[in-house]
Amino acid sequence: MTRQELTDLIKRKGSFLCVGLDSDITKIPKHLLDHEDPVFEFNKQIIDATIDYAVAYKPNTAFYESRGAKGWISLEKTNDYLNSFGKEIFTIADAKRGDIGNTSSQYAMAFFDHMDFDAITVAPYMGEDSVKPFLNYEGKWVVLLALTSNDGSNDFQTLQPQRSKFWQSMGMDKKLGKPLYEIVMRKSFEWASQYNLMFVVGATRARKLEHIRTIVPYHYLLIPGVGAQGGSLREVAKYGLTKQCGLLVNSSRNIIFASTGEDFAKRAGESAFSMQKEMKALLMRYRVH
Amino acid sequence: MTRQELTDLIKRKGSFLCVGLDSDITKIPKHLLDHEDPVFEFNKQIIDATIDYAVAYKPNTAFYESRGAKGWISLEKTNDYLNSFGKEIFTIADAKRGDIGNTSSQYAMAFFDHMDFDAITVAPYMGEDSVKPFLNYEGKWVVLLALTSNDGSNDFQTLQPQRSKFWQSMGMDKKLGKPLYEIVMRKSFEWASQYNLMFVVGATRARKLEHIRTIVPYHYLLIPGVGAQGGSLREVAKYGLTKQCGLLVNSSRNIIFASTGEDFAKRAGESAFSMQKEMKALLMRYRVH
Repeated sequence: MTRQELTDLIKRKGSFLCVGLDSDITKIPKHLLDHEDPVFEFNKQIIDATIDYAVAYKPNTAFYESRGAKGWISLEKTNDYLNSFGKEIFTIADAKRGDIGNTSSQYAMAFFDHMDFDAITVAPYMGEDSVKPFLNYEGKWVVLLALTSNDGSNDFQTLQPQRSKFWQSMGMDKKLGKPLYEIVMRKSFEWASQYNLMFVVGATRARKLEHIRTIVPYHYLLIPGVGAQGGSLREVAKYGLTKQCGLLVNSSRNIIFASTGEDFAKRAGESAFSMQKEMKALLMRYRVH
Repeated sequence: MTRQELTDLIKRKGSFLCVGLDSDITKIPKHLLDHEDPVFEFNKQIIDATIDYAVAYKPNTAFYESRGAKGWISLEKTNDYLNSFGKEIFTIADAKRGDIGNTSSQYAMAFFDHMDFDAITVAPYMGEDSVKPFLNYEGKWVVLLALTSNDGSNDFQTLQPQRSKFWQSMGMDKKLGKPLYEIVMRKSFEWASQYNLMFVVGATRARKLEHIRTIVPYHYLLIPGVGAQGGSLREVAKYGLTKQCGLLVNSSRNIIFASTGEDFAKRAGESAFSMQKEMKALLMRYRVH
């Protein structure tokens, strides 16, 4: 899907909601366990109930892999079902992959050839040749980890080993004073553009979005951490929205596990609708239309 | 497997060879394609031919995922077959996973519960809570990416943003002057010890091992990049061996694709034997016995 198509989709639906399919088989409603593929059945009903309010879906591969090959079958069926909606939705494999070039090429085959996701999340630690193989696909996207929503993001991502003002006053290279997540973002400009690259920025860091928008005024950002992890949608919109939206805000548990009873799909739909209403108001307030 | 068991295994076999099962279905001998599961059949014959010379096997998950659920079945069967050798071998899932805590827990389930590998490679970018769930398993290991063998490792891993001598003379924290891979290693000491943690250090950086051994004098290191990627076994041994060995040196393509004819297993065995002979001599030379 192209950037323009994604932006048009967001405007049409009045939503920048991404539904995270972290479909833990131990947490889905018990009455589904009689189905041949309970996780796929769960996903299908969640998708049907939320598709009017969401622009993107993001299966988290870990929750499928934990069930082995069977889980991968659920994932493949989910991908097929998502693709049956064509350009009505944007699909992200939340896989956090990244390895040396010939290996990343195989991961790209897994998610872009064997399956057909629009995007994949990629970890940047191994650098350029670990990311580039994912960029060789027309119309496909890399969503690069920048500043994540977890506590551990402070261990390395926000390290800023140098006092930048001091060095600037000494005439030293300013770049060296940036935190790692910013160095990652700036470096990635050499590999890709806002037309095939997004960044993960956690909603728990909403205030940091103001600074991040000075680095990436145009790129789409994928924002996890709203809801269960504590981030605020209003703060995210305030500091992160651009004139072309530029945001996909993910919600997983708050939607897919809104209820664990037989009404799970209905309640998921209500939860997604409630977020979409808030998003529509925010899109109007910040004049994204 | 415990550290002592691994060290004993290495001494008994006179080898610190890890065979990388990067079993690309487009590269395996054509006559195997008639088998019901060609990749598993390939792996089985490779394992049988090399088991006297290798102490570890490392399937690279990308080469299985690229074939979807079918590939995962090959991976699961390979894991079962490896486990049939019990403590004769150490098994590593080369998966480069890492995500927020509840997600890393699912990956740990995939590789330690659903399958039963001894170790998994983990990417450190997301910090402590992305690594810890893998450490909750008795007798299981995390192999943390530190300094990898690819060109992209220079993009972030070797960044050393501060002039350490200057800051040291100013009485500032020395730690800040270290390159990222060293910060990663030192930080991980807070989470784990040499009894459940190893590091990936590329053989293309053999000279760096001298410095790395000042940081981690006791930890096992998993060294990829010997052979096809250009690293030298002799250099690796010279700078990396400890009194208890402390090294697992991986070779993939040079062994598993030594021949693509019907003699592939025989040739793989010869290639592994040739490396084992060299390793045995190095273990004697550096008095690891």
